[in-house]
Amino acid sequence: MNTKVLRAKDYPRMPWKNGGGSTEEITRDAGHGLEGFGWRLSIADIGESGGFSTFAGYERVITVLQGEGMTLRVDGQDTRHLLPLDPFAFAGESQVTCTLLGGPIRDFNLIYAPDRYLARLQWLAGEQRFFSAASTVLVFSVTEQLEVKVGNGAHTLTHHDCLQLDGNTGLLEVTVSGACCVIELTAH
Amino acid sequence: MNTKVLRAKDYPRMPWKNGGGSTEEITRDAGHGLEGFGWRLSIADIGESGGFSTFAGYERVITVLQGEGMTLRVDGQDTRHLLPLDPFAFAGESQVTCTLLGGPIRDFNLIYAPDRYLARLQWLAGEQRFFSAASTVLVFSVTEQLEVKVGNGAHTLTHHDCLQLDGNTGLLEVTVSGACCVIELTAH
Repeated sequence: MNTKVLRAKDYPRMPWKNGGGSTEEITRDAGHGLEGFGWRLSIADIGESGGFSTFAGYERVITVLQGEGMTLRVDGQDTRHLLPLDPFAFAGESQVTCTLLGGPIRDFNLIYAPDRYLARLQWLAGEQRFFSAASTVLVFSVTEQLEVKVGNGAHTLTHHDCLQLDGNTGLLEVTVSGACCVIELTAH
Repeated sequence: MNTKVLRAKDYPRMPWKNGGGSTEEITRDAGHGLEGFGWRLSIADIGESGGFSTFAGYERVITVLQGEGMTLRVDGQDTRHLLPLDPFAFAGESQVTCTLLGGPIRDFNLIYAPDRYLARLQWLAGEQRFFSAASTVLVFSVTEQLEVKVGNGAHTLTHHDCLQLDGNTGLLEVTVSGACCVIELTAH
């Protein structure tokens, strides 16, 4: 199994073409730019209300990290108020506009191709343990000091760092010490 | 998607050949008796310390539900004290003997064939939400009244009832209101 700790300070940042925000890419399986990935994790800073890009053929799960929150209008239908750590799933091909509830927000994004990957996403708080057979397990920290135990190894993540475990072939035991998002992906 | 609520009072009970305990079968994918299943959930009542049956080619996750707990000796190596709601994974072909820490216990068992299924198991407490693309999702309650919301549907489970969702093909949003075990299975 291949283990990487991705540090928040190293994430590359890309401004949006429309000027309304920017994206930091945490990690992805393959490809470059907005092309060729089967899954991608990113953080977006949204400075103003406006439209989202479409990603036809992809499924998305978005979670507000910081700020008051937002509502989305997805193919003409308004969501509930999406507040911090309250995840929402939608199809990438949907027409989506975002209305900020207050000032700017940061959000966390999983985008994946369901015809290539099985996905799972869950926000956890407090000490939690799980067993997973997913080939890729990602743990994204939203606390200042997160301990992640994987088998006999241990890793410490700070705010917005991400642990990436690839190539799992067994039943992996993972313990986390605090608030984080766990994303699990397995190719079909 | 096919939804079933399995009630604890209806689980068939089978005494062990060695007289040391009995098993209630909650659900399984296929087969009869100890043959032919790709995965199986069960509850065992263990009245005395002693040996476990072997299940070659299977992976197991065991969790004490009630009683003081136990230690297992797995291929000559002792586990930590396994206390209620503290899951432990081991290979089905291992030679296993169980030593009760106090009186009789009940435990909860997932047994599955890793060459046929990807599995995931997690004990949850409090209100929790997750998104899963697993084809089968099972929620086993250890509280007196558990609310499980799945998409627009809702189910109420009492102690040791189990909700079984089969045939999921999308990204399923599931919310649980209290202490339970979530097991997710997808055929390779």
